[in-house]
Amino acid sequence: MTIIKSKDNPHIKLYLKLAGSKKERKNYGMYVLEGYRLVVDALMEDSKIASLFLTESAYEKYSSELSQADLREVNVLIISNELGIRISSTEKTQGVFAICRAAAEKEFEASAKSDGKYIVLYQLQDPGNVGMIIRTADAVGIDGIILSESCELYNPKVVRSTMGSLFRVNIFPDENIEKIITTMQEKRITTYAAVVDSDAQSLSQQIFGPGSAVLIGNEGNGLPDDISSKCDKRVTIKMKGNVNSLNAAMATGIFMWEMTKGNHRQKYGQ
Amino acid sequence: MTIIKSKDNPHIKLYLKLAGSKKERKNYGMYVLEGYRLVVDALMEDSKIASLFLTESAYEKYSSELSQADLREVNVLIISNELGIRISSTEKTQGVFAICRAAAEKEFEASAKSDGKYIVLYQLQDPGNVGMIIRTADAVGIDGIILSESCELYNPKVVRSTMGSLFRVNIFPDENIEKIITTMQEKRITTYAAVVDSDAQSLSQQIFGPGSAVLIGNEGNGLPDDISSKCDKRVTIKMKGNVNSLNAAMATGIFMWEMTKGNHRQKYGQ
Repeated sequence: MTIIKSKDNPHIKLYLKLAGSKKERKNYGMYVLEGYRLVVDALMEDSKIASLFLTESAYEKYSSELSQADLREVNVLIISNELGIRISSTEKTQGVFAICRAAAEKEFEASAKSDGKYIVLYQLQDPGNVGMIIRTADAVGIDGIILSESCELYNPKVVRSTMGSLFRVNIFPDENIEKIITTMQEKRITTYAAVVDSDAQSLSQQIFGPGSAVLIGNEGNGLPDDISSKCDKRVTIKMKGNVNSLNAAMATGIFMWEMTKGNHRQKYGQ
Repeated sequence: MTIIKSKDNPHIKLYLKLAGSKKERKNYGMYVLEGYRLVVDALMEDSKIASLFLTESAYEKYSSELSQADLREVNVLIISNELGIRISSTEKTQGVFAICRAAAEKEFEASAKSDGKYIVLYQLQDPGNVGMIIRTADAVGIDGIILSESCELYNPKVVRSTMGSLFRVNIFPDENIEKIITTMQEKRITTYAAVVDSDAQSLSQQIFGPGSAVLIGNEGNGLPDDISSKCDKRVTIKMKGNVNSLNAAMATGIFMWEMTKGNHRQKYGQ
């Protein structure tokens, strides 16, 4: 097996292009993964891995485990340990990298369910927050995460911080906010604007029935008035202490918990 | 005013020692802050800032705002912009640094309230998680965060990720877990072990009265059995999806929300 040692190898060049540029990811319809767990999750969830790069050390360490995965359509390449260090975005690389084809973009309009529970992220900018929200949505069982003018789903920091939930959660990555609200209204999905406003209704008083969606705004500015005013309800997490102390991902997590905890009771007989 | 340009200046040397070493922080009983907001929060909350360093640019930008703070006991020093870049731990520094005296260590035993709501973090290792939990505790109004064998409170990553809540939340930084549980029992505070176990009681079925404490374990291993078995209840966040998808800080945030939301209703007439 040939060992790739140079950054000029066309596969490595493509990897670095995709890792570094949103535009290139959009052009190619591809993105990158780094890390053993993330790549295994992608393989298990039938995500479209095009190329898999293993450093020599990673090949020794993981090849028997990876041999259980279906790699028939994957281009497996071995790279030198030094090249692995050079292309890694972490301090201590595991030496496992992949180029993945982006999932076909689903349209929310076409698949919206009247009894679904959705989160809409509007102008959320922090990749760590978006990743953490997707990860939590996977745990509590949200039917879909809708991104609108938010940070790009395939940003490597988002991908990494989803911890593999990216492959399990139903995500609509690039939607128009007005259109989403119209679709929600047509499907009779109740829309809740999450706001920081002590006059809004308290989250602790809400019962989220089937068919509900919570809209979350930008970290600094929240939802603009022209968006929140189109929602059925305005809801807030009433706080005792410092209002600025609730991070956007944490707030969204608490909303998702409130939206789904009734589900769990019914479904799992709690 | 003299402008400090060298890393060999004794104040700068102390700053770097404290930034880099847990042992030195312990020895001196001091820690460091970086960032305008964090330093202002420390000043507002009457934290014990010993020295404040501003780069020339930061001095121009912030001096009028800072002049409103009580700096009588603070040693204010101007440093060169280049030195600011060298001592900063961020990519784009604001040029505002401080050396702070650690708060006198409170003992939980001496100040435990029978009607308090507490979080105990046992062997939690990730500084970002500990910081996020302290930040969220500030928002929802937890009476105290107790650290036991967890990552050090004055680790610069913890300090930064508390976003100033470090100065507002009641924290017991270095407690013995057995002793905490004994104190809780003496004070008749109900103890809840947060576990990942589908046979445990569901969080959504709990009502947290005055006098309750939730124990959170290590990110990977959870609470050891010999600790959770000493608690009054074993409680879990029942999950629909992937159990590993709930981050420790997010799980703790959801527990804190459930612990305090009744408070809000009473106190704020929701």
